[in-house]
Amino acid sequence: MTTTTHPSAPTPGSSQSATSGPVAPTSGAACRLRPVPLEAVSITGGVWAARRQINGDVGVPAGRERLESAGNLDNLRIAAGTTSGTARGPVFMDSDVYKWLEAAAWEYARHPSEELLAAQREVTAIVAAAQQPDGYLDSVVQLRGGERYGELGWSHEHYCAGHLFQAAVAQVRCTGERGLLEVAVRLADHLVRTFGENGRHDLDGHPEVETALVELYRETGNRDYLELARFFVDARGQERIVAYGREPAYFSDRVPVREQTTVEGHAVRAVYLGAGAADVAIELGDDELLRVLERQFAAMEATKTYITGGLGSRWDGEAFGDPYELPPDQAYAESCAAIGGIYWAWRMLLATGDPRYADAAERKLYNGFLAGVSLSGEEFFYVNSLHIRADALADESRSPVHGRRPWFDVACCPPNIMRTLASLPGYLATTDTDGVQLHQYAPGTVTAAVPGGEVRFSVETEYPWEGLVRVRVEQAPDSEWTLSMRVPGWAEGARLQVDGQEQSAPAGAYAQVTRSWRAGDTVELSLPMTVRFVAADERVDAVRGCVAIERGPIVFAVEHVDQADGLVVDDLRVDPSGPTTAEYRADLLDGVTVVTARGRADNHTTAEWPYRPDGDGPAAYGRDVDVTAIPYFSWANRGVGPMRVWLPRT
Amino acid sequence: MTTTTHPSAPTPGSSQSATSGPVAPTSGAACRLRPVPLEAVSITGGVWAARRQINGDVGVPAGRERLESAGNLDNLRIAAGTTSGTARGPVFMDSDVYKWLEAAAWEYARHPSEELLAAQREVTAIVAAAQQPDGYLDSVVQLRGGERYGELGWSHEHYCAGHLFQAAVAQVRCTGERGLLEVAVRLADHLVRTFGENGRHDLDGHPEVETALVELYRETGNRDYLELARFFVDARGQERIVAYGREPAYFSDRVPVREQTTVEGHAVRAVYLGAGAADVAIELGDDELLRVLERQFAAMEATKTYITGGLGSRWDGEAFGDPYELPPDQAYAESCAAIGGIYWAWRMLLATGDPRYADAAERKLYNGFLAGVSLSGEEFFYVNSLHIRADALADESRSPVHGRRPWFDVACCPPNIMRTLASLPGYLATTDTDGVQLHQYAPGTVTAAVPGGEVRFSVETEYPWEGLVRVRVEQAPDSEWTLSMRVPGWAEGARLQVDGQEQSAPAGAYAQVTRSWRAGDTVELSLPMTVRFVAADERVDAVRGCVAIERGPIVFAVEHVDQADGLVVDDLRVDPSGPTTAEYRADLLDGVTVVTARGRADNHTTAEWPYRPDGDGPAAYGRDVDVTAIPYFSWANRGVGPMRVWLPRT
Repeated sequence: MTTTTHPSAPTPGSSQSATSGPVAPTSGAACRLRPVPLEAVSITGGVWAARRQINGDVGVPAGRERLESAGNLDNLRIAAGTTSGTARGPVFMDSDVYKWLEAAAWEYARHPSEELLAAQREVTAIVAAAQQPDGYLDSVVQLRGGERYGELGWSHEHYCAGHLFQAAVAQVRCTGERGLLEVAVRLADHLVRTFGENGRHDLDGHPEVETALVELYRETGNRDYLELARFFVDARGQERIVAYGREPAYFSDRVPVREQTTVEGHAVRAVYLGAGAADVAIELGDDELLRVLERQFAAMEATKTYITGGLGSRWDGEAFGDPYELPPDQAYAESCAAIGGIYWAWRMLLATGDPRYADAAERKLYNGFLAGVSLSGEEFFYVNSLHIRADALADESRSPVHGRRPWFDVACCPPNIMRTLASLPGYLATTDTDGVQLHQYAPGTVTAAVPGGEVRFSVETEYPWEGLVRVRVEQAPDSEWTLSMRVPGWAEGARLQVDGQEQSAPAGAYAQVTRSWRAGDTVELSLPMTVRFVAADERVDAVRGCVAIERGPIVFAVEHVDQADGLVVDDLRVDPSGPTTAEYRADLLDGVTVVTARGRADNHTTAEWPYRPDGDGPAAYGRDVDVTAIPYFSWANRGVGPMRVWLPRT
Repeated sequence: MTTTTHPSAPTPGSSQSATSGPVAPTSGAACRLRPVPLEAVSITGGVWAARRQINGDVGVPAGRERLESAGNLDNLRIAAGTTSGTARGPVFMDSDVYKWLEAAAWEYARHPSEELLAAQREVTAIVAAAQQPDGYLDSVVQLRGGERYGELGWSHEHYCAGHLFQAAVAQVRCTGERGLLEVAVRLADHLVRTFGENGRHDLDGHPEVETALVELYRETGNRDYLELARFFVDARGQERIVAYGREPAYFSDRVPVREQTTVEGHAVRAVYLGAGAADVAIELGDDELLRVLERQFAAMEATKTYITGGLGSRWDGEAFGDPYELPPDQAYAESCAAIGGIYWAWRMLLATGDPRYADAAERKLYNGFLAGVSLSGEEFFYVNSLHIRADALADESRSPVHGRRPWFDVACCPPNIMRTLASLPGYLATTDTDGVQLHQYAPGTVTAAVPGGEVRFSVETEYPWEGLVRVRVEQAPDSEWTLSMRVPGWAEGARLQVDGQEQSAPAGAYAQVTRSWRAGDTVELSLPMTVRFVAADERVDAVRGCVAIERGPIVFAVEHVDQADGLVVDDLRVDPSGPTTAEYRADLLDGVTVVTARGRADNHTTAEWPYRPDGDGPAAYGRDVDVTAIPYFSWANRGVGPMRVWLPRT
């Protein structure tokens, strides 16, 4: 096992006053890379700055109101005895409160407003008041009078606890306030007393507490939390969880984690478990577990991931399908699954230093994740379809068809999106003993510890719309260190320019420059921003004969509203050998690059039995047309109409 | 409106002693064709005789035991006070009892055993004892103490009543016994007193009572039942039914029947409603309603039907997808939906005389329906996938993957399959004022009323394995009448031979011979039994670039077990321009024709990110192979392994 320690890594229990990111491995952790703390990274422009500002200005305040109107806060108040009533909503209502608190904490790091701090204090007090004397806390169980942990396969008690722990860690790291952490520690201690090798061997049907317990360990230094997380990871896979009409596979409980070779069942559960197991592997230096997780992640990428990075192809059970079962029209691709995939990928990146995990995170961030929130910042997709047909708009029971919504009865996605946007700077850069690694590109600044001192550099870029990323060193110690910049797997032909000298930058690796840096030094990475027509492995049956359009890290979609009058999206084909244009349009969709390609519009006039002798179908006649594509993430922001990511080839 | 009456058509209330089929329009009904009564058609050989015998010998007796072990009968006994306990199972438990009773009645017509009659009497007595003094009957509501019809959106009280009515009609038609009919009439009268224009305007969330009320009207002559059926049909579509987390579309309640242009929502609900509405249209001579139903059925056929005739592509909500949303791997295609589709098609055929409805029924019968039952007759598919991948076998939570099962918690399909097999002779032939129409071909005899008297003829055929269908007149009156034989839509090039004279027989129409017939006259219809490679309309995205294999009315499937050692079904391609063979194998799967085609086996060795620049994928290399296909209906009878109906073209 390769263990790399680093002078700036926190010791457990030491970070009580320093702020940090959402994932802060201890100094003894077995990770190749260590996150640059969230507060040492600023994002000052581009897509992410805009989305993060709207998240803070609109999304987080709106979320606070939803917690009131949906009854989440009342559930806690009733549990505290400060108001009366009965529990509302599903069993995991508390988790939305905690995810909102977590989002508010990270947002406070971006923009420390007194109003937001006051709101956090108020909600924290509501949570604290609901906690029972022995530390137990779950308002729905308390109100509905069920036995504590009596139906843990479905009760989500650990899941809610995990979100509380993450919120508490975020709050102390961003505001320095310890109120929520005290609640979290009391509940975590209750879990430690109740579960584990010498306690109950039950498991929550929904993983989440594992990663949260590890982060609480990192914050507090209490190793019991790490041990309990390890216990929960290793206790899984005994086929014990059957609940809510679902079999063990749904709960990631069919196969022990260390024997599993892929991901299966409920997608969010599976990837949250992956993230938690990775945290355990990192903190325990458990190389065997890490290898297992690499294998699982690789299988997920190769066989169960949409081109958008979306995860989970089945509405039934919100689940991963079989390998290559990835129909665009029936895609589920829950926003929370993309988020969990990003969290898992980040931990794998820290553990291994392998850029493919940063590639995976980037794809999910710009596509499967970012599509989950409207440009207005207050409406959300739960399900992310990749193909809406013209006739799909009639039936309102199919959620993505009628667009994003402000909230849901099962409201996991909105606050999950909020906390992810708010904590984004924590996922951009890392350090190791040699220097700094830049994984994701956004305009801003990074301050990081390197051998010999602290470096500060700016990042200037129009990425993801343009391929040039310029790093300008603003301050550096008098020592040699390495700057590593990720060259995405799609970026064949990338070039790196250092002080006017060009060198190649292999795709799917880090372009590295080792030297003594001085203020004013610049490095320019040029990523090729050609329009790419992408085809799927032929085992992805549902998109055989189709291509998707990519440019940079962006997956494009063809939306009805952008096509010439009279063109029907489902009649379009695209010519991958034809010319394309890519134009940045500041006026469109808060600023996006629009791609046009050549294609054909077929005439589909028949409405008869659709299966005919091969070669015997009506001749496809039609006309040459331009096909206009926008970033997938921006679809459904001008009303909702037909859309497709995959188009048949001409 | 064209109304054809016929001397042999029953007058309402007149059929109390005559046996008849499952659908017996009254003499005043507006139908072009009238069913030849079930007892006037015998099936003496071939696929259907074999399946029907096993259904009677094994399926029906096993079903009786399941009603005991699953608690259906106990629910009724507890309601009657003859035993104690609490209700088991879902709300529609009674309906399984009624469907079994209906199956037993039709089976008694095939094979009148005293044992089966005794079993019917016993179960009938259990049902009768549970009925309340005012006629109300629903054991689950009675036992769980809910308000009668208080949650009709989900309670299935009318649905269960409908199955009771159909069972009662079957029983009196096949056994002459009136015990169940008396129960049915009491309950139907209770419904008439409670619902309708002048009563409650509520609707059951699951259509079924509409078609059943019409049949009860046909049997009893009580026009109130017909009027109530019409009321239920026309009251639908007000968007009032929201239950069980489902929206009105799920319940076919989004759009009024007369305004609907397609089918949507829960597939079984939609097609049962179509069947009931067709019955209403027939009995009321409601031409406007009939036109609406023709349009809906045509849209279903053109855009929402699998090649197997299977209906409903979404697991979520067991629902129809959008038009052309027909992924083979995520197909739901519930057995009950195929059955409902057959029932609807039959009524549309009676109403219109259009052979396309008989084509649709045939496709469903031999494929989507027949796949629902094992060759052993006692295991059933609820869901009928069209593509099982090699890796699908791990997760046991996906029902079709692990094969047919003896029964289900929601056990609608098994007794539905039993009653359909048992009543099959009722769906083969019709008469009109000109003569006899033969719609489906099976060896046996038909006796039917024609102008001037009664005709009796035999049918000799090896169909669906061979294309020759020979009709031999055994007895005929001394008058001129027309024999019509359906030429399926796929049968281009069919020929008809009468007394050695050949004439053409256009596909998708009836080949007709009008003459004075004498005993010994023969007609031979020759249907071309070439192997057909069939492609889908390109809007069926999920099978673009693929072909399916058909021969005669049979859709074929490529099942793992039949391929040469080492061949993986998901690696196979098929060459539609290559040679094929078709061989009947008496030793295989109770006797089936096996098709072989030429193809390629690709090597899929990579397991990496599956989306690559168009044209940039690893070269497909592989080898020429034979691809072996069996009838889809017979798959999963030798264990369960990978299977696919659609294969990529070479």
